[in-house]
Amino acid sequence: MLPEPIQKLIDELSKLPGIGPKTAARLVFYMLSKPKEDIERLGLAVLGLKENLRFCSRCYNIAEHELCEICSNEKRNQEVIAVVEEPLDVIALEKTRSFDGLYHVLGGAISPIDGIGPEQLRIQQLLDRLHSENTKEVIMATDPDFEGEATAAYIKDKMRESGLDVRVTRIARGLPVGSNIEYADEVTIKRSLEGRRDY
Amino acid sequence: MLPEPIQKLIDELSKLPGIGPKTAARLVFYMLSKPKEDIERLGLAVLGLKENLRFCSRCYNIAEHELCEICSNEKRNQEVIAVVEEPLDVIALEKTRSFDGLYHVLGGAISPIDGIGPEQLRIQQLLDRLHSENTKEVIMATDPDFEGEATAAYIKDKMRESGLDVRVTRIARGLPVGSNIEYADEVTIKRSLEGRRDY
Repeated sequence: MLPEPIQKLIDELSKLPGIGPKTAARLVFYMLSKPKEDIERLGLAVLGLKENLRFCSRCYNIAEHELCEICSNEKRNQEVIAVVEEPLDVIALEKTRSFDGLYHVLGGAISPIDGIGPEQLRIQQLLDRLHSENTKEVIMATDPDFEGEATAAYIKDKMRESGLDVRVTRIARGLPVGSNIEYADEVTIKRSLEGRRDY
Repeated sequence: MLPEPIQKLIDELSKLPGIGPKTAARLVFYMLSKPKEDIERLGLAVLGLKENLRFCSRCYNIAEHELCEICSNEKRNQEVIAVVEEPLDVIALEKTRSFDGLYHVLGGAISPIDGIGPEQLRIQQLLDRLHSENTKEVIMATDPDFEGEATAAYIKDKMRESGLDVRVTRIARGLPVGSNIEYADEVTIKRSLEGRRDY
């Protein structure tokens, strides 16, 4: 019933996460109401997205050149690697300005339900890095959920198996700053007790 | 901090309604994880959106040709015009399969707060149509909100002023099918009483 260019764009937008056909239709009709130049800018930005981007050959973060900005910055601490799931996690950690080491982006977490096993992630590449680089500490900064914990545990085992003598740490799991103990779930409270420190 | 192609697309997506910078970033990183062809399809669909579309020269619905599909369908009842705010309203009414007349798309509703006065809408074009076409009834199908009611009232006055002797009706405002009287607001209940019919 809809003109083909509209239906086509609705179909494509509906493939994005969190956007159903109704939201997609709303977006398309909003775009139709805007000047052609605005829509062209959006379309060209989509087309240009992957044009000049690649994965960093060292840490698999998103990069504009062979190495990403972090890997090519020699001032960063070359002896610490934070292992994260996604490029967005790099951004989240960078925003804190409290980490000046390197990263390794796995590209996800082990999740048998979604058909993601260790071989789909850049775990072998991490082990190769650890064998060739002068790393003193690996911070497991995967998500504190089921998949992230499983991935961190798997990588730690693999590191031990391949005889790597590198300190492995895990980001602290505890009560979020500004939260209430009263409303926290038991597992988080348990973790925050286990992770207590001298005060 | 982000590579420029990513930041550019985040900025463009953030201009869409209901999409903030966080959602935009999530969408962009999702796109980055997809094959290049998928992203190209989306980008080309955006670019193609306005390429082959225009407004129907008669009713201002979205059209692929000079006249939209509805206006060019001679089997439709040429004597009834439903006045709606947006092309999406045409689709909503068409989905009911209970209206076989023509439409007139105003392009919005009178809203002084948003700087939209009658001259920004296709009201004069509607009056011109009514003078030249053989219309017997105009159904005011603008939204039953403040702006839609004001627009409907304004158009009715203008029709009377310009001496048009055409029946003007307004879509029924009442309780939505499947709802509960208990939870309905007073204005809706009031309208559903005023609009009661023999049973």
